[in-house]
Amino acid sequence: MGHKTAVFRKEHFNAAHRLHVEDWSAEKNAELFGKCNLPHYHGHNYELVVKVVGYPDPVSGYLIDMKVLSELVQREVLEHFDHKNLNLDVPFFKNINPTAENIAVVIFNLLRPHIPGEIDLQIRLYETERNFVEYPANI
Amino acid sequence: MGHKTAVFRKEHFNAAHRLHVEDWSAEKNAELFGKCNLPHYHGHNYELVVKVVGYPDPVSGYLIDMKVLSELVQREVLEHFDHKNLNLDVPFFKNINPTAENIAVVIFNLLRPHIPGEIDLQIRLYETERNFVEYPANI
Amino acid sequence: MGHKTAVFRKEHFNAAHRLHVEDWSAEKNAELFGKCNLPHYHGHNYELVVKVVGYPDPVSGYLIDMKVLSELVQREVLEHFDHKNLNLDVPFFKNINPTAENIAVVIFNLLRPHIPGEIDLQIRLYETERNFVEYPANI
Amino acid sequence: MGHKTAVFRKEHFNAAHRLHVEDWSAEKNAELFGKCNLPHYHGHNYELVVKVVGYPDPVSGYLIDMKVLSELVQREVLEHFDHKNLNLDVPFFKNINPTAENIAVVIFNLLRPHIPGEIDLQIRLYETERNFVEYPANI
Amino acid sequence: MGHKTAVFRKEHFNAAHRLHVEDWSAEKNAELFGKCNLPHYHGHNYELVVKVVGYPDPVSGYLIDMKVLSELVQREVLEHFDHKNLNLDVPFFKNINPTAENIAVVIFNLLRPHIPGEIDLQIRLYETERNFVEYPANI
Amino acid sequence: MGHKTAVFRKEHFNAAHRLHVEDWSAEKNAELFGKCNLPHYHGHNYELVVKVVGYPDPVSGYLIDMKVLSELVQREVLEHFDHKNLNLDVPFFKNINPTAENIAVVIFNLLRPHIPGEIDLQIRLYETERNFVEYPANI
Repeated sequence: MGHKTAVFRKEHFNAAHRLHVEDWSAEKNAELFGKCNLPHYHGHNYELVVKVVGYPDPVSGYLIDMKVLSELVQREVLEHFDHKNLNLDVPFFKNINPTAENIAVVIFNLLRPHIPGEIDLQIRLYETERNFVEYPANI
Repeated sequence: MGHKTAVFRKEHFNAAHRLHVEDWSAEKNAELFGKCNLPHYHGHNYELVVKVVGYPDPVSGYLIDMKVLSELVQREVLEHFDHKNLNLDVPFFKNINPTAENIAVVIFNLLRPHIPGEIDLQIRLYETERNFVEYPANI
Repeated sequence: MGHKTAVFRKEHFNAAHRLHVEDWSAEKNAELFGKCNLPHYHGHNYELVVKVVGYPDPVSGYLIDMKVLSELVQREVLEHFDHKNLNLDVPFFKNINPTAENIAVVIFNLLRPHIPGEIDLQIRLYETERNFVEYPANI
Repeated sequence: MGHKTAVFRKEHFNAAHRLHVEDWSAEKNAELFGKCNLPHYHGHNYELVVKVVGYPDPVSGYLIDMKVLSELVQREVLEHFDHKNLNLDVPFFKNINPTAENIAVVIFNLLRPHIPGEIDLQIRLYETERNFVEYPANI
Repeated sequence: MGHKTAVFRKEHFNAAHRLHVEDWSAEKNAELFGKCNLPHYHGHNYELVVKVVGYPDPVSGYLIDMKVLSELVQREVLEHFDHKNLNLDVPFFKNINPTAENIAVVIFNLLRPHIPGEIDLQIRLYETERNFVEYPANI
Repeated sequence: MGHKTAVFRKEHFNAAHRLHVEDWSAEKNAELFGKCNLPHYHGHNYELVVKVVGYPDPVSGYLIDMKVLSELVQREVLEHFDHKNLNLDVPFFKNINPTAENIAVVIFNLLRPHIPGEIDLQIRLYETERNFVEYPANI
């Protein structure tokens, strides 16, 4: 039993991207994605908040060692994303449009295998201070 | 099926208000609401975060077009609230005390009809950096 | 019935602490807690967000008087924690390692008896801008 | 001599205001001040940063006791401005339009007599996160 | 005479860039610019603070109409920079490496002709929350 | 000649401290320093902003390599301050009261010898979000 607790660790990366669906016409892409579809990419300072939920160890008082969590995010996510072009340099987006929604799912899938099964995981990703997403919702 | 995701869009407005219940005596109003009951109004830079929850489109990678969401908030909420006196200028508060709790419910009711039924909606409203509310709770 | 709403109040305190489990060897403490185990303490500007959830009064529009909530946090928590050494000065941590997870549980237990039973309570505690916790999870 | 140092203390107040020049026509007021001229006032969470510059005491290491500075700002400024209508409740603005520029000058004049003459003073006032002023410039 | 005051307006834009000096070898570029030299660009949420210094009008209480200043920045800077690739899309960087230092100079030169000569101008540019510049220094 | 520019790099450290003048009585210490004088230390998340001012290189567009500046701050300051007790662990404060004013002077003196003479240096130190200092003033 014990005290079900959520622990959050915030990291960041800087990346270029462009929103574009290959199968659509230029017009349809421009209509939906507007300036985000411009051909030469733009970029963001992405803020990434990793949330893990579970029962802290009653002796150490740690749910997870945040240093270990931070190094995991560094190795599995930031190494591949930071100072990169998400469309061109990150194979996970070869067939996936790098919207904030999709980036959050990709990051979740990269981290999930490395976190113990009894610990829940949620990704919050800020594309800008005003636009952000959480996946999965409602945990 | 797919990836249930939450998307957030942050907006803001500046407004004056005063907390006051018409049916109460001046003393009872002053006792509960303190400085917030002073007769000539005071004001806030309200920060409004609109949360929508659902399944992003698998092709576009969008749950909702944030530009469209931002324009909806602009048209249905900010046009009526920004640089206004909530008590005197905004008819929705004719019989409702403009506490942060009530402002959140009013904003929810203004936006809900314009958002597809399969998408959940939550309002977070910061009255100050230190006082804020969410309605409905727990989504 | 009515509008189930969450209300948040943010407070802060400055305190020293050190992570250390008495029953462990110096080596084991150093290995898990790293710099946080250094003997002469370090410190943080803790940001504390108290979340209460319930049905606002339909007349006043208040779930809880934030002034009363702030004074409660001041009296039951900040008086004991602010500008103190959590390990040496705060008896609640006599046998509990002052990790962020454990501090959140202690604060929850200090506030819970003073908040009406029909109102739910959650503690969010920022140890730094990048490390924070919520207890209980998922309310 | 010693180490010329600047010390800053941040405070805040919530107030209503309206920009309006009595001697101008309604049209001229509306043209220049736009939404800020609307008749029933709007409001802001003003953030006030008080900067003092001088030589810290070599023994105490204090330029000024920040607690004393904070109490001074509380007594001379916040008591008169917080939760007030600047146009109607604050006599200093009887003949002065409460623009951010003018509010900063008024606050400077309220604090200057209470700060030792060998210490320089500057006021920074945030009307919103995006609009702010400093008076006097360049100290 | 009057009250020399500084007025600040904060804007933002999202752009891709890459640090690269054409005349240098690939090795020299990689050595100095590190990850910022990667070939496919990365990006930032740039925060831009425009500071103007002068004597506010004694009647209106305005140094400058912030709405006009904001529109000027929109037209002269953001139209050319926002959601663009600074290296490929913005001719001002054809022969200038888009470091934060150089971007600030370019923005200064774009705005200076449109601001009255008796008003001083300074640009502050945040590339990230942790890296930022001011040009010219010391005004 | 060229473009005199200021470049800022933000770092942080977490430390414990206590304000106390050895030569003073307990009463005098308590009277001036209040809660900051409590015997078992408290602590802060210090935010450190290092400002350097000079003429960027016209070819690279860099005043200083921020990566090098960050590593310098890491080696000369953070190694000695982070997760330490400033009074007990940091010899620079053996005879100096660790007020924010004095910490800024100590950091300035640690960094100054490692920065080229033609580049000016200023330290900004946030003890809390509401209390901060700059040394030297007015550069």
